[in-house]
Amino acid sequence: MEKYSAIRQSAYACNMQLPHLGLVLFTFGNASVADHAEGVFAIKPSGVAYADLTPEKMVVVDFDGSVVAGDLRPSSDTKTHAVLYKHWPAIGGIVHTHSTYATAWAQSQRDIPIYGTTHADHLTADIPCAPPMADGQIAGNYEYETGFQIINHFEQQQLDYREVEMILVGNHAPFTWGATGEKAVYNSAVLEYVAKMAALTEQINPRAPRLKDSLIKKHYERKHGPDSYYGQS
Amino acid sequence: MEKYSAIRQSAYACNMQLPHLGLVLFTFGNASVADHAEGVFAIKPSGVAYADLTPEKMVVVDFDGSVVAGDLRPSSDTKTHAVLYKHWPAIGGIVHTHSTYATAWAQSQRDIPIYGTTHADHLTADIPCAPPMADGQIAGNYEYETGFQIINHFEQQQLDYREVEMILVGNHAPFTWGATGEKAVYNSAVLEYVAKMAALTEQINPRAPRLKDSLIKKHYERKHGPDSYYGQS
Amino acid sequence: MEKYSAIRQSAYACNMQLPHLGLVLFTFGNASVADHAEGVFAIKPSGVAYADLTPEKMVVVDFDGSVVAGDLRPSSDTKTHAVLYKHWPAIGGIVHTHSTYATAWAQSQRDIPIYGTTHADHLTADIPCAPPMADGQIAGNYEYETGFQIINHFEQQQLDYREVEMILVGNHAPFTWGATGEKAVYNSAVLEYVAKMAALTEQINPRAPRLKDSLIKKHYERKHGPDSYYGQS
Amino acid sequence: MEKYSAIRQSAYACNMQLPHLGLVLFTFGNASVADHAEGVFAIKPSGVAYADLTPEKMVVVDFDGSVVAGDLRPSSDTKTHAVLYKHWPAIGGIVHTHSTYATAWAQSQRDIPIYGTTHADHLTADIPCAPPMADGQIAGNYEYETGFQIINHFEQQQLDYREVEMILVGNHAPFTWGATGEKAVYNSAVLEYVAKMAALTEQINPRAPRLKDSLIKKHYERKHGPDSYYGQS
Repeated sequence: MEKYSAIRQSAYACNMQLPHLGLVLFTFGNASVADHAEGVFAIKPSGVAYADLTPEKMVVVDFDGSVVAGDLRPSSDTKTHAVLYKHWPAIGGIVHTHSTYATAWAQSQRDIPIYGTTHADHLTADIPCAPPMADGQIAGNYEYETGFQIINHFEQQQLDYREVEMILVGNHAPFTWGATGEKAVYNSAVLEYVAKMAALTEQINPRAPRLKDSLIKKHYERKHGPDSYYGQS
Repeated sequence: MEKYSAIRQSAYACNMQLPHLGLVLFTFGNASVADHAEGVFAIKPSGVAYADLTPEKMVVVDFDGSVVAGDLRPSSDTKTHAVLYKHWPAIGGIVHTHSTYATAWAQSQRDIPIYGTTHADHLTADIPCAPPMADGQIAGNYEYETGFQIINHFEQQQLDYREVEMILVGNHAPFTWGATGEKAVYNSAVLEYVAKMAALTEQINPRAPRLKDSLIKKHYERKHGPDSYYGQS
Repeated sequence: MEKYSAIRQSAYACNMQLPHLGLVLFTFGNASVADHAEGVFAIKPSGVAYADLTPEKMVVVDFDGSVVAGDLRPSSDTKTHAVLYKHWPAIGGIVHTHSTYATAWAQSQRDIPIYGTTHADHLTADIPCAPPMADGQIAGNYEYETGFQIINHFEQQQLDYREVEMILVGNHAPFTWGATGEKAVYNSAVLEYVAKMAALTEQINPRAPRLKDSLIKKHYERKHGPDSYYGQS
Repeated sequence: MEKYSAIRQSAYACNMQLPHLGLVLFTFGNASVADHAEGVFAIKPSGVAYADLTPEKMVVVDFDGSVVAGDLRPSSDTKTHAVLYKHWPAIGGIVHTHSTYATAWAQSQRDIPIYGTTHADHLTADIPCAPPMADGQIAGNYEYETGFQIINHFEQQQLDYREVEMILVGNHAPFTWGATGEKAVYNSAVLEYVAKMAALTEQINPRAPRLKDSLIKKHYERKHGPDSYYGQS
């Protein structure tokens, strides 16, 4: 059994979910799955069509972004993944897409307001949009700096990455994560769904109010609180 | 033959229609079917993927929301279903989804105006949107209170649940019902279709008038009146 | 060989195209095909799901709307079809749907402006929207009057039904027609496509100008003029 | 082996991608592939349904628009393709569609602003919209003049056709091209995707700013610069 076969298999399965869920056109996205004990993650190779992927083609990279195993060049967004895994030890998977509605919000440079319980079932805050980076960051180690832009924005906004598992990078596109690759993929689809409904909500009622605090709290605790009663666990 | 196999089979079939009709992402919805003679209904288990459902996994619950048969925990919305079945004896099925356009209207906290005959073929009123609940209701027995919020709104608005078989719960999402589970599923798809066309209508003409009374009456009677001439019955 | 088998087969094929082209939900639409020599047309039975249709189930009706052959009740819109066939001898097929964007324009009570060559390839006028009928017409023989509402609107607007093969009935939905049933189905899909692009055009540029006359003329003649050079005929 | 079989096979494959990618309704589009050494290109026959195409039905035409081989009449847009191949020697494939969002922008007579990195990954300029042609051009050799309208607009805007591989023709629809037919098809899908996200961006934030220059430069060089690090080449 090859040493990295578990994360390669998992990263492959996560990547293949992205076109299936309608979240990517061509190669506009990538998923990765980490093994924190080994300090590595498996990620999609750069520019390879989803139809041509296999588990073996997943590239294994360490948390500084250096390739550890694999014949192909990893996703051009690899360093962003590496920074997040290095600083946020509780996440096991990351997904980056250019899904239509979430990307439109990122291009609009707006947080997605929490308008309903679909949103509150997953997080209690507006979905944050980090501002575009400073020119110096962009000209430098761009993807590396993208990772820090995300982490810094969470610190400034006093958000906890274990509670808010998604962000829009201004002018760019969304990143989502989770305890597993599967959860990161799930969050990516939820984000796109919530982003579409929020845009429609503002079209139907430009003065729609945010969800009130008591409902935010109730729906989130229903799924995530100590007395949660959603699901079978 | 297991005692509840008929309602379990029917609830299973209704739940499986929801992803087929494009009304749910992941597990964002549930359908139930009642047996009023036995005082019970069968409902989707909580958080189980549609692909993993079987008729046997449907949970049988009484009209107070207590589990009567089944190994799994029932949908977290079970008490809302129970309240509606208990108070509205003519309904045999209930569907709850977070379908995109209907939910956007719920988040907008607006009734859906009756703009055309597609709407009038199914009901003669605007599709009602119940206001979000008071904080006390939310903090208490939330899903139970959601059922009463629906029933109270119908009473206040002098609507008849046998004529208006759908509602939006403000900031949350739609519920639909009908004499059978199949009719509740049908109403769920009709609501989403009407909700989409109403949003487009307002985009194309922000001053679009409501349908005039004579057309409302005509289309509804064509399908539902004593001299109805739609369908084969 | 049954006397009406040709039009029944053709009407069946046309009806089955409607869900395939995404133009109908459930039974929200119907297609018919006429035999002018016999003075009859075959039309979808009322309220029967598309999946349950067969050529034999098509109902044969004369141009006054009386059933000539068939065991089922014909579409509730049958008299509208009958009026059009009786007064417009050059049409061999009619389609009625509640397709999303075309119906939203009908609900908006607006003609669809001619914004581009996609529209001009098919007709040189704005797509007309007939006003809702007077209350007397509605209370009377409604579907019969719907046919006259269409014919009268064409006369008032000095439109030729052989050049403009589609109309929106205000607050209701579209009707299309053509020399054959196949052409009527084609026009129904073209209308929905043009209706969607016109709504998007106004969203992107609320002051978008109508197509200029020279382009309208050129594109239409390319396909329909005496020196047409589109297609293989 | 037939002399033109390579470009016919390639043009066939490119045309068949268009309905698969959701870019065409019925026959609203065409793709061609050129052989510059022979001074010819293979293009879709006019008005033939995609389902009925075969490689052998592709029509071979020279760069003045005269048919060289093939039994069918070529696409009515053939002279536009011919003009582009004659004047832009580096392009090997051209695609024309009436895809929904790109065409809506063309009807709006607006350039598509560069709002995000999805756009910048492919070109550094706004996607240009050429104005509608003068009446004299339209009445004359229309499709021939369409080609010159495109070329002249690029000259006036000082755009390089090897860097900007797409254009909207005002009131009409998009054309895309590339070194190969496959690249032209790819660009056609990218354009539609970017056009949709730009329309949504303006809906969500009517004051959304264009992407800043440093990000435009970075994303484009990531894929296209001398030190590009996207993909496997």
